[in-house]
Amino acid sequence: MDQIKLNRHISGQFNAELEHVRNQVLLMGGLVERQLQDSLTAMMKSDVELARKIIEDDRKVNGMEVRIDEECARIIAKRQPAASDLRLIMAILKTIADLERIGDCAERIATIALDKKLDPSSSMLVNLDGMGQQSIRMLHQTLDSFARMDVDAAFRVHKKDGEIDQSYEALLRQLMTYMMEDPRMIPNVITVLWAARALERIGDRCKNIAEYIIYFVKGKDVRHTDLTDMSN
Amino acid sequence: MDQIKLNRHISGQFNAELEHVRNQVLLMGGLVERQLQDSLTAMMKSDVELARKIIEDDRKVNGMEVRIDEECARIIAKRQPAASDLRLIMAILKTIADLERIGDCAERIATIALDKKLDPSSSMLVNLDGMGQQSIRMLHQTLDSFARMDVDAAFRVHKKDGEIDQSYEALLRQLMTYMMEDPRMIPNVITVLWAARALERIGDRCKNIAEYIIYFVKGKDVRHTDLTDMSN
Repeated sequence: MDQIKLNRHISGQFNAELEHVRNQVLLMGGLVERQLQDSLTAMMKSDVELARKIIEDDRKVNGMEVRIDEECARIIAKRQPAASDLRLIMAILKTIADLERIGDCAERIATIALDKKLDPSSSMLVNLDGMGQQSIRMLHQTLDSFARMDVDAAFRVHKKDGEIDQSYEALLRQLMTYMMEDPRMIPNVITVLWAARALERIGDRCKNIAEYIIYFVKGKDVRHTDLTDMSN
Repeated sequence: MDQIKLNRHISGQFNAELEHVRNQVLLMGGLVERQLQDSLTAMMKSDVELARKIIEDDRKVNGMEVRIDEECARIIAKRQPAASDLRLIMAILKTIADLERIGDCAERIATIALDKKLDPSSSMLVNLDGMGQQSIRMLHQTLDSFARMDVDAAFRVHKKDGEIDQSYEALLRQLMTYMMEDPRMIPNVITVLWAARALERIGDRCKNIAEYIIYFVKGKDVRHTDLTDMSN
């Protein structure tokens, strides 16, 4: 949302409120991004202390979601937004729900780091880390698109989800082979499997957020539709 | 939401709109419930045709979500709801997002039924079905609480999630044992594992919906808080 659009409001206070809630979303996104990065570090380095901090900080993420929700409800009640203002608030309400769930994924990976000591040099963990970095990049791009309400960037994010799915499928095949070759490894492999699944879901959630951005900018609900042609 | 509350609106048309959107949510919930039941049947009976129908019908679920979202946005823009009306709309917006995701779980289980022929008499499938029936009961109770906006029932649903988690943990342990005893079974067991995971997530989503009901009735956002004392 650019400054031009914001300025058309007669009420400067309303502008300030919308801007504030939008900044809150970006702050929340920044925290979630750091949580995710830290959770991968904690798992790769078996850093129990870092893992505990992530689990502790998930409460902050949850608290931010609740506060932003309340702020949106207050704005709706007080300002009776319509058209693009209302779409922005709807987009924000949905975005924070997905961000909160990405935060849960980070917490889940941190729990794994807490429970299990995995060998960071094993090729399955190296591949998992690669997939994790891919998810972090996707989340970063998603938050960038949100910050600038950049619909083209949102389309690019949307397309990226397929890449994470591919990495996930490849990792899944590798993990199956490991288990069949050495059944004693099964408990550890299953642990990596859960982490991979959590990372794969992050891609889905970034895709959702990209759809809310497109909805805000284009005024069209594009969820559950094929976006191949829409970006042109 | 009881009739008394609805009747305080001066505009009978506004009442009708709120009632209509609420009924749409219940219709969507009913469809999702059937999808879930059918997906388990399809998996237990390796019924490919039923599985295809479920995957096809997931589009209906998605379409309902988008339409309800639009209807809520229209009501906000037109009626400028405040207090409990606004809370109802916020609760509905969040509820349908979770319902849509439960629908996705059903679709995922249907895809498994399509891809793999599993032996329905194997004890792992019997236990999976048991867990599935547990999820369906929980979803049913959740929709019942929503229909009556019954906060006590919502608290009961909220407590139930722990039971599904327990069944899931027990099944997970059983599946690990199977894999270690007979590595050739690993691909099939992993399939059951995904289905179990999907069912376990349904419990989480019902819990979310229960929290939105409590939020609507009590006017308090209880997400991410311990509800042990609140129900008294």
